[in-house]
Amino acid sequence: MRERAARHADQPILRVRVRAGILPPRRAATVEQMRTYLDHNAGAPLRAETREAMLAWLGPPANASSAHREGARARSAIEAARAEVAALLGAAPAEIVFTSGATEANNLALRGALPPGRGLVTTAIEHASVLETARALAAGGTPLVEVGVDVEGRVAAAEVVAAGAAAALVSVGLANGEVGSLAPVEEIAAGLAGRGVLLHTDAAQAAGRVPLDVRALGVDLLSLSSHKLGGPPGAGALWVRRGVRLAAQLTGGPQERGRRAGTENVPAIIGFGVAARLARVEQADVATRTAALVERLWQGLRSSVPDVLRNGPAAAPRLPNTLNLSFPGCAGESLLVLLDLAGIAASLGSACAAGSTEPSHVLRAMGRERAAARAGLRLSLGPTTTAADVDRVLAVLPDLVRQVRAGAAA
Amino acid sequence: MRERAARHADQPILRVRVRAGILPPRRAATVEQMRTYLDHNAGAPLRAETREAMLAWLGPPANASSAHREGARARSAIEAARAEVAALLGAAPAEIVFTSGATEANNLALRGALPPGRGLVTTAIEHASVLETARALAAGGTPLVEVGVDVEGRVAAAEVVAAGAAAALVSVGLANGEVGSLAPVEEIAAGLAGRGVLLHTDAAQAAGRVPLDVRALGVDLLSLSSHKLGGPPGAGALWVRRGVRLAAQLTGGPQERGRRAGTENVPAIIGFGVAARLARVEQADVATRTAALVERLWQGLRSSVPDVLRNGPAAAPRLPNTLNLSFPGCAGESLLVLLDLAGIAASLGSACAAGSTEPSHVLRAMGRERAAARAGLRLSLGPTTTAADVDRVLAVLPDLVRQVRAGAAA
Repeated sequence: MRERAARHADQPILRVRVRAGILPPRRAATVEQMRTYLDHNAGAPLRAETREAMLAWLGPPANASSAHREGARARSAIEAARAEVAALLGAAPAEIVFTSGATEANNLALRGALPPGRGLVTTAIEHASVLETARALAAGGTPLVEVGVDVEGRVAAAEVVAAGAAAALVSVGLANGEVGSLAPVEEIAAGLAGRGVLLHTDAAQAAGRVPLDVRALGVDLLSLSSHKLGGPPGAGALWVRRGVRLAAQLTGGPQERGRRAGTENVPAIIGFGVAARLARVEQADVATRTAALVERLWQGLRSSVPDVLRNGPAAAPRLPNTLNLSFPGCAGESLLVLLDLAGIAASLGSACAAGSTEPSHVLRAMGRERAAARAGLRLSLGPTTTAADVDRVLAVLPDLVRQVRAGAAA
Repeated sequence: MRERAARHADQPILRVRVRAGILPPRRAATVEQMRTYLDHNAGAPLRAETREAMLAWLGPPANASSAHREGARARSAIEAARAEVAALLGAAPAEIVFTSGATEANNLALRGALPPGRGLVTTAIEHASVLETARALAAGGTPLVEVGVDVEGRVAAAEVVAAGAAAALVSVGLANGEVGSLAPVEEIAAGLAGRGVLLHTDAAQAAGRVPLDVRALGVDLLSLSSHKLGGPPGAGALWVRRGVRLAAQLTGGPQERGRRAGTENVPAIIGFGVAARLARVEQADVATRTAALVERLWQGLRSSVPDVLRNGPAAAPRLPNTLNLSFPGCAGESLLVLLDLAGIAASLGSACAAGSTEPSHVLRAMGRERAAARAGLRLSLGPTTTAADVDRVLAVLPDLVRQVRAGAAA
């Protein structure tokens, strides 16, 4: 027993921590260093700079609506963060509405900007917070069109424009977090220009990975997530072009110019601001580095794993950090568990559908059959991913696929 | 210049910090120690234990929906926090829906539990997130009754029951955060029993200050705020009695059993859990201590300030930590600024209405005339308040009231 404890030294410690619900920071760092985290599209680790900035706000009372010095200090810090988030988008700070995350931002865009009874257009591969919200609105009487995608997960601008011309709101995600496809949002915006149709894009998976400029994109509303780009969870934003009418979905306070009531989550907003600044400054460099690591990973796997398929676009433009793979004859769930035991965190499609036994709605929309749609393994990289992480995957994944396939055949 | 800088040593440091949007923790502590913070009803300082527990979660990726070890750890910690929040209420963990705060919890209760077209009853002194949401629903066709209060800020159970008998949802705040009155929620619940009317109570200002037990109260829905009880902002909860139907207002994810979509704010929820445990364990002691300090404050002020009036209940039952005062002939705004400069943070009524020039809707509902309703000064204490804080107020407030009155008379 002692020998086993020594060989898996991190495991007993972890178990105790999980039971207590608390993970002491020093030990956490030790464990994290031993792990390869390739699930940045589910949530990025907090950047050190972000953590540092947040620490100062874990203590003082911080109701930014208060008239005293403590309140004014929180107000000032929130506005500095708002300017950083706006700068990431080439937007004006007053156009940023802070929310509790991208799910709330997407809900606010769809529920708050679409006049009752008017038409809504979206695509079949949106994040659940867009797609399920659209379907909830449709159940309440909103005319809804879901535009399909091609085998690489790309939507055709012409199809969206044709459907959108009769609608009041079009919502097309800028980047798909499961397979990495990018939507032709600029082209859609050009096609819809002058028709009085609002265009929303969920950019939660695009921010920090591809350049973002709301004026160049030509959109009216854009959603962001803090924790996808190295900030903490609990913060997000909806950018609302000046002049666009938005009905608040949370009422009862003057915060966010009446567009989102509730005491501001000051520490998370501060962290979001720092992460937005890093994302803006580092985006080009991170894109180059993660694209090279993804390429190394893909070339390594295709040469060592028989019958591996890459889901999503075969070439750029695509998200530089995302690799979605199918291994025919290999159950994705089993592979994920074995990878986890081997110290590698990955996912099957979106974390928001984890735990469900449903196949990925994205892979299904791309025409993959049910079995293949359940076998998609997503490896998503980030600014902190190293060549050693990639090499670790290359060292263990081929053998694990063999094991699972052998088990399935037995 | 150097002499002035030395005399107000904290101010230049503060200004720099505000500009950078960052307040380094050590210096923050120095400044905070010099200040007397009596605005706990707007937001309590984070408890040291809470901060400590949160630190471990500022770093590791923490999407609790992820299937890997990092995700499982976050899931486990969230469930531990859920158990703590449930324990504070004498509730079952599965009945707790985590939200981004009490404003969202109140919106979710009213928008999610009230069937369309059915009647809603509330009181004239609710927090804006209840009252404005009720009025927004009324603008959409919901029949709404707002029950008034007496001169001490108390609602009559019989009036609420009479109005509520024909309604589908009754929402009455347990404790009023401005004047400290408590509502007879148990009596209202008894009066409505068996009539098929849902009873919601906003307990954001009651938690940690008075005993809380959802079964004893007899309510169906109850809202909590983390940052009012020593946890971080960005977390709150709606307790929903098993069997009560609730329509999610944020859709697009399986979180919170489908009742609230969105990646969980893990660090804030962890902090909320710790704060809830402290609130449960310490409530009786904190109530005794803050009530004694409030009494010392009140007796000291009434003997040193001519014509001071206490707003709210003249005797228990009331919130033990809250003192709301009117100084006729003394503009509240001026007094607040001078107190702030003297190192004392207080407020005029609710922070959520700060910045507005409107008189307090609570004091107005209690029958105070407009001028008096604008002059209410709220001092709200907490677990960290000391006798020295009280003595500091007693040392400076009487003179400040004299100054402002003299200025007004001149």
